[in-house]
Amino acid sequence: MERSINFQSKFDLFEDHWSPKVIAEMNDYQFKVVKIKGEFVWHSHEDTDEVFVVIEGVMQIEFEDRTATLQSGEMMVVRRGEMHRPFSEEECKVVLIEPRGVVNTGDERSDLTAPMDDWL
Amino acid sequence: MERSINFQSKFDLFEDHWSPKVIAEMNDYQFKVVKIKGEFVWHSHEDTDEVFVVIEGVMQIEFEDRTATLQSGEMMVVRRGEMHRPFSEEECKVVLIEPRGVVNTGDERSDLTAPMDDWL
Repeated sequence: MERSINFQSKFDLFEDHWSPKVIAEMNDYQFKVVKIKGEFVWHSHEDTDEVFVVIEGVMQIEFEDRTATLQSGEMMVVRRGEMHRPFSEEECKVVLIEPRGVVNTGDERSDLTAPMDDWL
Repeated sequence: MERSINFQSKFDLFEDHWSPKVIAEMNDYQFKVVKIKGEFVWHSHEDTDEVFVVIEGVMQIEFEDRTATLQSGEMMVVRRGEMHRPFSEEECKVVLIEPRGVVNTGDERSDLTAPMDDWL
């Protein structure tokens, strides 16, 4: 049984934006792939930090006091409770790491709220 | 304040092998960079899963019943209690993700046992 997971192969399996798909679990944490393009909603996660890793492309994360840019091969930890808004001019391929059960829009509900536990 | 973390920039800061350095924390989990080359020791972690992500190069993980190969852009979850031995013919750059407090050699102690919480 081979259990290695190729990020690019996973990204090849879907086309929609802003809808994270679970590709692996480590203890009670999940690894998710998501394609992003355009603007997400302002939100925060009151109970947990969240990690973004950019696999391909460029994304930005707007915070209340600054905007961060993340390139391919870079990661960022967004702290619990920290208001943030991800966005990307061009399509960007991202791996998210966070505990099982996290809603993508945090404490906000919007048209961009995606199902949890959507395994690829 | 810019908080993005560039993996390659972190790898440029050290040369030793098999000694993971913490680059970020998410809740009680740590992201570590490690360069590996040659053979590690057989070990397991009784209390936690562990994730390997290959950033550059090729590594292999020997299990009791098979050997897995991980290329750049691939990840693998090693399950708690699962005996494994990482190795790599050429130098390979790896990101490890696991809870704070994990000893690199698990339940084994050897010359390869590295200090915990070695922040880069």
